[in-house]
Amino acid sequence: MELLKQRIQKDGSVADGNIIKVDSFLNHQIDVSLLNEIGKEFKRRFASEKIDKILTIEASGIAIAVIAAQYFQVPVVFAKKSESKNLDVETYESNVYSYTKGKIYTIRVSKKYLKEGENILIIDDFLANGKAAQGLLDILKKAKCNLVGIGIVIEKGFQNGGKEIRKQNIKLESLAIIEKMNNGKIIFQ
Amino acid sequence: MELLKQRIQKDGSVADGNIIKVDSFLNHQIDVSLLNEIGKEFKRRFASEKIDKILTIEASGIAIAVIAAQYFQVPVVFAKKSESKNLDVETYESNVYSYTKGKIYTIRVSKKYLKEGENILIIDDFLANGKAAQGLLDILKKAKCNLVGIGIVIEKGFQNGGKEIRKQNIKLESLAIIEKMNNGKIIFQ
Repeated sequence: MELLKQRIQKDGSVADGNIIKVDSFLNHQIDVSLLNEIGKEFKRRFASEKIDKILTIEASGIAIAVIAAQYFQVPVVFAKKSESKNLDVETYESNVYSYTKGKIYTIRVSKKYLKEGENILIIDDFLANGKAAQGLLDILKKAKCNLVGIGIVIEKGFQNGGKEIRKQNIKLESLAIIEKMNNGKIIFQ
Repeated sequence: MELLKQRIQKDGSVADGNIIKVDSFLNHQIDVSLLNEIGKEFKRRFASEKIDKILTIEASGIAIAVIAAQYFQVPVVFAKKSESKNLDVETYESNVYSYTKGKIYTIRVSKKYLKEGENILIIDDFLANGKAAQGLLDILKKAKCNLVGIGIVIEKGFQNGGKEIRKQNIKLESLAIIEKMNNGKIIFQ
């Protein structure tokens, strides 16, 4: 997606430890008009699929998923990362290791909001090692939902999350795939 | 907001400890068309104000803020609750006690995304004791931003968060104010 790549080049930056900072428009401050273009592009790429619901994970996936959901006209469910008195006791769970946070955490979705046979599209902001995506796939398997595919805004092509997912014959659509980062310069595939 | 109150009556429920569960449409599973009506209503209530940016707090505030931002045509910034390698070192911070999680946590906004003199509208899903809102107000004060007002989807009128905020002469617009909960029944003001 050309507009997105241009924006990453213009406003993104590379931080220590292979981290791409896009927090001026994607995951801290949010440019909602860019998100609308991203939502339209996801709809274009999954236009032929039957989708009942979009699944994402808190926190930064939520903004992308709800804006995209307007084009699919389906509800969004987001997996929760922290325990809360608000959450149902009956949940599907999976354990996920986060490199950016440096710890394992449990993600949870109430059993009420994932029904057997539902057609689910996963949407998230980043795909790197793919741990969050694998956690969501694990939850969908437990819930016996049909996975339609995965839509990612930025994939780090030099890490193996995307490779692992494509190996499973899952339809993975990443709007910008970063091939490498050289001296602070971002190079796309 | 009548549509919202009807939806709370229809799909909301009361759980132990004065907790209102609206996770089938607002803060776990999300009805994006309802969020659009909520966004329009916030725009109507703050139509006369100059607003540069919407500030919210992760996680469930994000969905509401980004959908509402489409009607204001401004960017969203969300305060982060957890430490992350992605976050800038230079942040405005405040400590917030969460009753639903039973602990104190630090909320943070990068100094890059709140500039002195910017006109900020705060949007969040719930107002109960007002601890999260006070944390956001504290951050705006530190950043020397102008607070335009606060838009809340559901206010628990029987807790004192709203009272404390109105005492400070802040324009507070809550789309549904719950007066009390009686034997699992929700009664609006």
